[in-house]
Amino acid sequence: MDAKVARPMKMIAQLQPLRELVRGWKANGERVAFVPTMGNLHAGHASLLSAAHLHGRRVVASVFVNPLQFGPHEDYRRYPRPRARDRARLVAAGVDLLWEPDVGDLYPDGERTRVRVAGFDAVLEGAARPGHFEGVATVVLKLVNAVGPDDLWLGQKDAQQARIVERMVADLFVPVRVRRGPTVREPDGLARSSRNAYLSAAERDDALALSRGLASARAALERGERSAAAVARAVRAAWRRMPGVREDYVAVVDADTLQPVRAVRRRVLVAVAARVGRARLIDNFEWEP
Amino acid sequence: MDAKVARPMKMIAQLQPLRELVRGWKANGERVAFVPTMGNLHAGHASLLSAAHLHGRRVVASVFVNPLQFGPHEDYRRYPRPRARDRARLVAAGVDLLWEPDVGDLYPDGERTRVRVAGFDAVLEGAARPGHFEGVATVVLKLVNAVGPDDLWLGQKDAQQARIVERMVADLFVPVRVRRGPTVREPDGLARSSRNAYLSAAERDDALALSRGLASARAALERGERSAAAVARAVRAAWRRMPGVREDYVAVVDADTLQPVRAVRRRVLVAVAARVGRARLIDNFEWEP
Repeated sequence: MDAKVARPMKMIAQLQPLRELVRGWKANGERVAFVPTMGNLHAGHASLLSAAHLHGRRVVASVFVNPLQFGPHEDYRRYPRPRARDRARLVAAGVDLLWEPDVGDLYPDGERTRVRVAGFDAVLEGAARPGHFEGVATVVLKLVNAVGPDDLWLGQKDAQQARIVERMVADLFVPVRVRRGPTVREPDGLARSSRNAYLSAAERDDALALSRGLASARAALERGERSAAAVARAVRAAWRRMPGVREDYVAVVDADTLQPVRAVRRRVLVAVAARVGRARLIDNFEWEP
Repeated sequence: MDAKVARPMKMIAQLQPLRELVRGWKANGERVAFVPTMGNLHAGHASLLSAAHLHGRRVVASVFVNPLQFGPHEDYRRYPRPRARDRARLVAAGVDLLWEPDVGDLYPDGERTRVRVAGFDAVLEGAARPGHFEGVATVVLKLVNAVGPDDLWLGQKDAQQARIVERMVADLFVPVRVRRGPTVREPDGLARSSRNAYLSAAERDDALALSRGLASARAALERGERSAAAVARAVRAAWRRMPGVREDYVAVVDADTLQPVRAVRRRVLVAVAARVGRARLIDNFEWEP
């Protein structure tokens, strides 16, 4: 994972030769890791690609801004697409194969199939973004089936997305192993996100509320607090001192089922979403008693 | 496809060894055909298995009565499950591997993923059976992913099911080829179906209405009729002489999209459903100008 030792990166636009290249690698005994992205790559993606390299001989990445996971009032059109910069970063990350499908490749005329993980898609991010996770599940299944990797890498930053994809892969017997890469943070704790680019300098300070709120929640859990309501209060207490932050949700849910818990008895996901300026930011951590 | 040359049929209950056996065949260059069934096998299934054998070196069959595709008032519980007879027929058909999953294998606790082909599932059979094709699409994707065959064989008798699965496989880039086997009929024209067993001797005569109605429709098309309404009238004219038949639908739809057409300009599916006694029967044919 060093630009100096970067291998040549192939770019294949057509599905059939792409699939055959991956099949050839696998037939050759080379483990293939796949990292789907929406581009606009940052240190979080670099970390995921690095982890993919450690566990696989070959790394395939895709860059595709998936219209199906954006709501009608969301930022699909203005979502950044710095294609040349992304390609350079993928080369530097040692990616073997890059796939940049067009919208018409994944959603041709007449395409009609949708995949959902019932009950997992209406909570947390799904409550605020109806249809979002149907879009995510559908596109991830298309991409994984098209590429045919051994491992699929997703970031912990989008914990609900990761959990939904894990559930889908298990339920549908998709022959791939889902792995999560840890959330990458700035030195002061802010989780890396494409949407941080929407923050002004002042909002950048306010955005620290998310990681600080989660640190308070973690401290409460470590102290022995087991009431989900009290854990959520710890987050909100931290936010009260930061007026630039508008809560969307503070949730303590079962890490497997994503359903709210009253008491922390097994592994939980503590997840927050808040608006800072015009950006909507999320962050989370998992914790087990 | 002769009982005298039947090969030993393996039965594997666990997913992992099943998948590995199929992978081994494929790695060995042996083409693997898969025929999913709900058991209660008849000549239609035998024909499908025979076709699968002609195109593949290995044939895998599954027997699974899928609860997800039955409505609350349908015949899930009383659907016939003659397990020993089915096994004998599959051995005689030269099946290499039989998988008889339990409900808990395909729908374990916590399972939540559903697959639908929007717009294809609310017409024809889907109009009368809400949720039916979501159940079909979901279970077929599970079974195909679990087995990992080269070819998936489905019967033309369930044309809408075949078309929905074809659409799903294309949309999701599932690495399998869908093939259809022709409808198998009794000498007098009645399409073979598990549900024919529900017919009394008198109803058995009335049930000929379906194939006779379709024959009238085909004759109209061959004569040059291009109005979908006139083609449907030809079916109903045949049925008027058979009072034991209650129409559910008579449809002329685009063979690709399953949407109704007014004029027959390209390939169409002419599909009928009717109640005869307590049985609900379907039949169809495809026709191209």
